[in-house]
Amino acid sequence: MRIDIDRDRLVGTMREQAAIGGTEGGGLHRLALSDADREARDWFVDCATAAGLDTRIDAFGNTFARREGTDPDAAPVLAGSHLDSQPDGGIYDGALGVVAALELVRTLDDRGIETRRPIELVNWTNEEGSRFPPAMQGSGVWAGAHDIEEEYAKTDADGTRLGDELERIGYRGDHPAEPREPYHAYLELHPEQGPHLEETGADVGIVTGIVGLRWAEITLHGQANHSGTTPMQHRSDALVAAADVVTAIRRLPGTLGERTVATVGSLDVQPDSVNVIPETVTFTTDLRDPSEGVLETAVARMEAEVAAAADREGIDYEVEGTMHAPSVDFPDRPVEAVADATADLGYDGRRMVSGAGHDATHAASVCDAAMVFAVSEDGKSHTEDEFTSWADCYRSANVLANAALDLADAVGE
Amino acid sequence: MRIDIDRDRLVGTMREQAAIGGTEGGGLHRLALSDADREARDWFVDCATAAGLDTRIDAFGNTFARREGTDPDAAPVLAGSHLDSQPDGGIYDGALGVVAALELVRTLDDRGIETRRPIELVNWTNEEGSRFPPAMQGSGVWAGAHDIEEEYAKTDADGTRLGDELERIGYRGDHPAEPREPYHAYLELHPEQGPHLEETGADVGIVTGIVGLRWAEITLHGQANHSGTTPMQHRSDALVAAADVVTAIRRLPGTLGERTVATVGSLDVQPDSVNVIPETVTFTTDLRDPSEGVLETAVARMEAEVAAAADREGIDYEVEGTMHAPSVDFPDRPVEAVADATADLGYDGRRMVSGAGHDATHAASVCDAAMVFAVSEDGKSHTEDEFTSWADCYRSANVLANAALDLADAVGE
Repeated sequence: MRIDIDRDRLVGTMREQAAIGGTEGGGLHRLALSDADREARDWFVDCATAAGLDTRIDAFGNTFARREGTDPDAAPVLAGSHLDSQPDGGIYDGALGVVAALELVRTLDDRGIETRRPIELVNWTNEEGSRFPPAMQGSGVWAGAHDIEEEYAKTDADGTRLGDELERIGYRGDHPAEPREPYHAYLELHPEQGPHLEETGADVGIVTGIVGLRWAEITLHGQANHSGTTPMQHRSDALVAAADVVTAIRRLPGTLGERTVATVGSLDVQPDSVNVIPETVTFTTDLRDPSEGVLETAVARMEAEVAAAADREGIDYEVEGTMHAPSVDFPDRPVEAVADATADLGYDGRRMVSGAGHDATHAASVCDAAMVFAVSEDGKSHTEDEFTSWADCYRSANVLANAALDLADAVGE
Repeated sequence: MRIDIDRDRLVGTMREQAAIGGTEGGGLHRLALSDADREARDWFVDCATAAGLDTRIDAFGNTFARREGTDPDAAPVLAGSHLDSQPDGGIYDGALGVVAALELVRTLDDRGIETRRPIELVNWTNEEGSRFPPAMQGSGVWAGAHDIEEEYAKTDADGTRLGDELERIGYRGDHPAEPREPYHAYLELHPEQGPHLEETGADVGIVTGIVGLRWAEITLHGQANHSGTTPMQHRSDALVAAADVVTAIRRLPGTLGERTVATVGSLDVQPDSVNVIPETVTFTTDLRDPSEGVLETAVARMEAEVAAAADREGIDYEVEGTMHAPSVDFPDRPVEAVADATADLGYDGRRMVSGAGHDATHAASVCDAAMVFAVSEDGKSHTEDEFTSWADCYRSANVLANAALDLADAVGE
């Protein structure tokens, strides 16, 4: 059985959510646990209630909405994403996955379709990690990757505790933040956030897994001194050593897997004065690859480059691993459900590995998971300019709906 | 005629000034035009008055104290330095030059020595430039290098106007901020702020000039994007381009003059997030050499490196020159006065070019100028750990006193 979602209703619902925390630049400022996030959460609960779903909120604010199946013992299919945004994010990232899941149950209701398995929608707490670290926090707590008390204690830049904010906005729920039963599958639709689909002319992405990721913070301890009076041979310049590593990191992927990416995104110099030799430089490295073996090699080479660069300037250093996310291979069953739906709908689907982490990373440790990617214009992401055409929103949501229906077993088919 | 200053009084006077704005770490926090700076200025005026000198304050707060000579038409000899400090500076930088000049007139008084030329002491306003840009501001205004109204309008990090602060601390004087008569010579004693004297085992530095300096601020405009989903070939990473330039700047002196120094001291990354490719990087370059020809080559090579690095990442850039100080060659007469005094006192003097700018840079555009350098332990500077032994303070102040006496023509010799 194939269904066709209501494109106009999908677009209308996307616009409704985009009005909550909307920016003048046409994007979203809807940080996790802010007032705007509360408003978006309330809107989601209202939509789910209007669709006749039972909603429940867990102790970390993850919000579930359940459409019962005909088999009371069947494990449910979970579908959703997140409604929080980056500080200057776009209107699609996260929201498209939640809206598409809503549109799925509305379409089933329109058509009077029952499923053997329950279908649950989910809005995860704090996927972005922009206000409180880490990213994918709510799904991580739910999947048991993080301790809930430690995450409650996280603070934002103003020192506000996450737990207090959750309480304040009324989303510290009564249900335990954990899977309350076995789940059959988790499906998530998300914009690609990269250029791959657009470049290959594909309609949708059939996501077969998520790259592994290693983050580190590196500190180099040079010696501050006067830039005019200190001969070059007397210098221990922390920024020079850091620059060597930045260059090496840029070169690293070309010597490893063809899908390796490596980035130095953040760098801080102290004392940061035009005429003082840099004493301390702290910077981050972000290494990703679908292969754990390649990642291990990448980390080893990065560390060797740091050691060599520090040695050249005669300085000490520290390397601290700050995030270690193993690569995820989605199992065949849900991936093929996505692939079959794509093919049946006549879309050109492209199999690909996600370069970004998603809530599906954690969900995949609880049950079979898979993802659908929508085309991102120019691959733009985490910016107000993020763009997915309504045609692409429709196509990808249609794939999500049909794959979910397949996994949930339409009754009477 | 040779004189011998009072070592104990010199040390005592150094300690007196070090108590004003002194830090727990044994250094100074005496930013220009702060309350501590006012207190240091008042102390200087009190010392000068106690020594029977006529003090006058100019419209930019530069404070002069005059000991008359026997010839009312003779051009005076000017000697001094500055009492303001870096945020965490040492107790010698600047203050040693002012205290040594005070000790000169006290010694002349003790000995009843008259000079044909008047001797003027000076405490220049804001040599450090840490609170209000630029460095060497007071002497620059006095020498006509800066427009006084433009400098009044400079603001500190809190937005406070320099002119208002000058008024507030009571040091916006009635005298025009300009040389009120021709000067015969300017002499300044200063710690070396580098390791050269200590390394060569010299007692004092006979400074023959000041290196030329070129500062620039470079901005690279890359493209922000997701670090996980953006393939390496799609990136325009501003930090990678900046790192290429930092590396090239480190290499530059080795291909130019043996006294060339080149530094990237300040660097800022935007948006500065672990998982976002750097969009904008702004950094400074500081290039110095005694030769203007070498400096021109250094600037051209720096700009070529910026262009090449930006081209490799496919990004735009701007290079803005922010400071251009030509190299200064001190004339023979005052330099030989310093050299003769050094030799007569039996000290091992080393001729050298200053790698740092000093108020003498501007004074040299008004009259013959020269400098004496005191040994800096380990070349440490602009830190609380800055150190010059009392023995070295004494020796260098003795050289200053005798060179100044020579230039001022002792009467009855």
